[in-house]
Amino acid sequence: MELVERPTPVCGSRDVLIRVHHAGVCGTDLHIWEWDSWASNRLRPPVTIGHEFAGEIVELGNEARAEGLLAIGDLVTAEGHIICGHCVPCRTGHGHLCVRTSIIGVDRDGAFADYISMPVSNVMKLDGIPTDVGAIMDPIGNGVHTALEGGDITGCTALVLGCGPIGCFAVGVLRAAGASLVLASDFNPFRRDLATKMGAHYSFDPAKDDVVARVKELTGGIGVDLVCEMSGHPDGHVQAFRAARPGGRVNMLGTPSRTTEVDFARDIIFKGLTLYGVTGRKMYTTWIQMTRLLRSGQFDPRPVVTHRFPLDRIADAIGVIKGGSAGKVILDIAS
Amino acid sequence: MELVERPTPVCGSRDVLIRVHHAGVCGTDLHIWEWDSWASNRLRPPVTIGHEFAGEIVELGNEARAEGLLAIGDLVTAEGHIICGHCVPCRTGHGHLCVRTSIIGVDRDGAFADYISMPVSNVMKLDGIPTDVGAIMDPIGNGVHTALEGGDITGCTALVLGCGPIGCFAVGVLRAAGASLVLASDFNPFRRDLATKMGAHYSFDPAKDDVVARVKELTGGIGVDLVCEMSGHPDGHVQAFRAARPGGRVNMLGTPSRTTEVDFARDIIFKGLTLYGVTGRKMYTTWIQMTRLLRSGQFDPRPVVTHRFPLDRIADAIGVIKGGSAGKVILDIAS
Amino acid sequence: MELVERPTPVCGSRDVLIRVHHAGVCGTDLHIWEWDSWASNRLRPPVTIGHEFAGEIVELGNEARAEGLLAIGDLVTAEGHIICGHCVPCRTGHGHLCVRTSIIGVDRDGAFADYISMPVSNVMKLDGIPTDVGAIMDPIGNGVHTALEGGDITGCTALVLGCGPIGCFAVGVLRAAGASLVLASDFNPFRRDLATKMGAHYSFDPAKDDVVARVKELTGGIGVDLVCEMSGHPDGHVQAFRAARPGGRVNMLGTPSRTTEVDFARDIIFKGLTLYGVTGRKMYTTWIQMTRLLRSGQFDPRPVVTHRFPLDRIADAIGVIKGGSAGKVILDIAS
Amino acid sequence: MELVERPTPVCGSRDVLIRVHHAGVCGTDLHIWEWDSWASNRLRPPVTIGHEFAGEIVELGNEARAEGLLAIGDLVTAEGHIICGHCVPCRTGHGHLCVRTSIIGVDRDGAFADYISMPVSNVMKLDGIPTDVGAIMDPIGNGVHTALEGGDITGCTALVLGCGPIGCFAVGVLRAAGASLVLASDFNPFRRDLATKMGAHYSFDPAKDDVVARVKELTGGIGVDLVCEMSGHPDGHVQAFRAARPGGRVNMLGTPSRTTEVDFARDIIFKGLTLYGVTGRKMYTTWIQMTRLLRSGQFDPRPVVTHRFPLDRIADAIGVIKGGSAGKVILDIAS
Repeated sequence: MELVERPTPVCGSRDVLIRVHHAGVCGTDLHIWEWDSWASNRLRPPVTIGHEFAGEIVELGNEARAEGLLAIGDLVTAEGHIICGHCVPCRTGHGHLCVRTSIIGVDRDGAFADYISMPVSNVMKLDGIPTDVGAIMDPIGNGVHTALEGGDITGCTALVLGCGPIGCFAVGVLRAAGASLVLASDFNPFRRDLATKMGAHYSFDPAKDDVVARVKELTGGIGVDLVCEMSGHPDGHVQAFRAARPGGRVNMLGTPSRTTEVDFARDIIFKGLTLYGVTGRKMYTTWIQMTRLLRSGQFDPRPVVTHRFPLDRIADAIGVIKGGSAGKVILDIAS
Repeated sequence: MELVERPTPVCGSRDVLIRVHHAGVCGTDLHIWEWDSWASNRLRPPVTIGHEFAGEIVELGNEARAEGLLAIGDLVTAEGHIICGHCVPCRTGHGHLCVRTSIIGVDRDGAFADYISMPVSNVMKLDGIPTDVGAIMDPIGNGVHTALEGGDITGCTALVLGCGPIGCFAVGVLRAAGASLVLASDFNPFRRDLATKMGAHYSFDPAKDDVVARVKELTGGIGVDLVCEMSGHPDGHVQAFRAARPGGRVNMLGTPSRTTEVDFARDIIFKGLTLYGVTGRKMYTTWIQMTRLLRSGQFDPRPVVTHRFPLDRIADAIGVIKGGSAGKVILDIAS
Repeated sequence: MELVERPTPVCGSRDVLIRVHHAGVCGTDLHIWEWDSWASNRLRPPVTIGHEFAGEIVELGNEARAEGLLAIGDLVTAEGHIICGHCVPCRTGHGHLCVRTSIIGVDRDGAFADYISMPVSNVMKLDGIPTDVGAIMDPIGNGVHTALEGGDITGCTALVLGCGPIGCFAVGVLRAAGASLVLASDFNPFRRDLATKMGAHYSFDPAKDDVVARVKELTGGIGVDLVCEMSGHPDGHVQAFRAARPGGRVNMLGTPSRTTEVDFARDIIFKGLTLYGVTGRKMYTTWIQMTRLLRSGQFDPRPVVTHRFPLDRIADAIGVIKGGSAGKVILDIAS
Repeated sequence: MELVERPTPVCGSRDVLIRVHHAGVCGTDLHIWEWDSWASNRLRPPVTIGHEFAGEIVELGNEARAEGLLAIGDLVTAEGHIICGHCVPCRTGHGHLCVRTSIIGVDRDGAFADYISMPVSNVMKLDGIPTDVGAIMDPIGNGVHTALEGGDITGCTALVLGCGPIGCFAVGVLRAAGASLVLASDFNPFRRDLATKMGAHYSFDPAKDDVVARVKELTGGIGVDLVCEMSGHPDGHVQAFRAARPGGRVNMLGTPSRTTEVDFARDIIFKGLTLYGVTGRKMYTTWIQMTRLLRSGQFDPRPVVTHRFPLDRIADAIGVIKGGSAGKVILDIAS
């Protein structure tokens, strides 16, 4: 991976050309940086990476302009999943599961660049949300999707397993949504501290705490209504299934690199659990919920942002993420 | 209506005898006090009135004790709707709509008394909720039911029409549930002030403000996601239908004394609105949500309680409610 | 209204030009024919009317072709509501309530013509559904939307008030969806007969039958789970509210020309009813449900089609609809 | 296990004494017959086994009679899970997950007997459903719960993995609920034949057919909306996850005797699947749905009943079930 000169992207008739102000660095970018098996199988270089960003509109294609909803100078962010709009998932509110999805920074040029061209359908005005917050609405949206899917959070008890940036965002969203008890768990004390800052009532260290026992103790012996599984680790899965109450729900976002042995009879069937796999953001229910939470001030993601670098120091950005003592890391590209 | 000596109620095998500590005075009690047409048609005197209360268990019937879930000395409140448990509504989560419902303080002896006998199925332990809050969980539950039915309040915009005690409770519940904008409207400045104390972002005076216009102005021209109609007035209905956004929802609790002219084509059908009639509390989903909101401190109803009287001053209690400059009024019976 | 020569519509870059085979005649077309107050306020002539149709693709714009999902020769129908795609309703699955909706045959040129140009987003392949059925998927979709909104029809009891074509379609959809008892009501014996052909278990004549009493009698005294109100008459509204069971639902599609007096306390609030205003078709959940029901043969709308005319006999088509002894009327334009 | 003389069960104040007419033999009874590790850990002999039955009321306790809803001579069946009614699951519509559940024929005396005493809350009148059908409403209810959880079956595509009696019931319920395509899979040709009799459009033999490939082929390449996993085998789990479409649902009822290796990233998370563990019957939503489907004739379980024996030939009943060439087996005890 290297920083190179590339021509400014073409802005088609239904496209919007955006001057990137800030971009978020994601675990996906680490996989690409390390060129692991997933990355080498999926990417077709050369490709500009980066899929989290916000910036300013500098050009509008003819049809995009004709819609009259966006103008040059507007501060915007964008959904990075470009979908077909015609398949059954797209036509029934599951566009985030479109099988023809093309992802910016993975399947087509992305946002670690001065300019990015996006289809007008995917562009969202910030309308008062700061651009450095706008730049991380992709992972905040993952947190919103994980925290709110299944509904009825008000008064609920919840456990967030894995306190990386998205886990920490989920903690904050759960509090904003009126959860009455939010528990968090991570091996890393730095991350537990971020979860606490975002509003977790209690945080656990799985190296020392019996997480399931602590959850039961704090929920009158029955377990939590909702587990947000963000660790992507088989041990996290087992904890999730044990910590959820009978009839409870486990929303799974962390993507494991290996399989998990599941005792379906004991852990899922007899408990009447619901499991849900979280991919991306609902297009665009999640975005509407997120913009309202951000604009009203009910949810502030900024305590999770721990580091900022200029674009040419991306190696350092990757380094602090790998070091583990980082929350969300942002690249400042322009302003 | 008069204060008389009555024998201590009988505590049957599946009943619980409760020493009443506090009781709430409700609009229903006013109707009875004034012996209006509803009251004279429904009640069969002599009957002890009062349906909102909390107190201490002093006796348990044999079967109630055998269940092992309640003990003498427990501080409790109770759902005042006693239902059959066998009809289709009862068997499908709509017990609050049981056609065989018997209501304490209306159809059978109630809580403006030293003791009340309740079926064990309806009794709920307070477990840390103060008894004077426990005494008003009946109307708080009306507010929870009205605010949360339809789900997905997080980030929503809402309008509460009518800021009596239940309207004010709904305001607080909407804030606790993560609504991003809560608007309130009432002719009475005292009540508008209570709504503001409970968290309303803006309050309107329908005598001076164009409520629908103000709502549109504060919601980008589209209207609110949810209207809680607590005024029970035909004018409130029309405002509710106009102030809701296309595809929005109107939860109606205020019970009007006359009919409303509705332009269904313009106000309901072309707007794709959902209307929902709120009766009582869902048994017992509403109670579970409410106890969690109260115990966690997310929702505190106490700013709405403006007056307290001993039982023998019930005439004064009724008087301040009729005077209009009162929120919730409580009778202190024992402690 | 007259039959005139007009140039073939322009097929833009994201448009599809369709040779119309068949078109349905709708009550809306009658309003236009009679140039009533709604029509004279809404339409800006000259405009080609007609919004229900199916036909064959004869031209594809550049971008429409590039998508690769449609080809010249495909037999198709289309959703006639052209929406903005950007507003809150559009972005949250309520596109049928988009405030910028433009309707073919009303706000822009429609389908009573040899050719119609449609945005590719709105075009649906028939894939085996006959074109004369495809031509009436707009009103069938209204019936699907009305019958299925609220879910869980399996085993339900339902009442359809008003047995025009859409009411009759709703009867058939309710049967296909597993309703255990479907009741129908209309003053017109011809229409009652159509409802029976579509599967109604019983049909009532409000001129002679006490509809509410019959419904109660056939439902163990409690009323139906769902009323589909297709009459658009204030008397139908009142019957709907009385015939629904406590906790039941009334989906309202018939658009009344005047207001209804509603006793909200007795009929909506104390009964815990849900009312829902039905507009158009959910884009595109309704279409997915409908195509599956049609392709599988579970639902066959053809008994409702009673008359067919060539385009130049549209006056006769309008005439039979006004005569009352007609179900759905189709114009055969080409094939 | 042996057939012995026992005293007639005691009928308490809130109990109903029932003369058993017919009883269903279930896989659970086989586990007890074979005294496997589950059975030897759970049961405390002596206990009368059998949990599926119907019969006639011969005695009512005082309070049961006072309710006035049941009478001597009524033909009834009963929900065999006796629950506490007070825990969070019980109070929020998840009584089937009550942690204090006591099951007849397992934890207390059951129905392979002349008489059984049941709490009045659990007894349901047959009202026209034949007693031999009433006797198997427990497993029919499992099929209803598995087929309908998640809602919106109308027009759906579904796959039933495992065509034992409950799988076959699910096939019939899916058809009654308006599924547009119902696929079934089982190694056993006898069971595949029963599934076809109950309405499966296609049935597969996993020994010869590539089940996932066939499902994709019949669903336009995307997979089914709903999988009912009734096999309880790890191979079935993997097939279920692969055969479901993106955004689809897997309702799991079959209880495996060992763990399954799950690739959560590929099979659940990236596909956005929902998994749900099915236990018992929803109390009493499932029962209401089931009685309506049975009474209306929409669903007829009788083709699945392949054998009937008198009570003293229970060994033969167990034998035919173990032989594999049996559907549902009923014991005829009285009539």
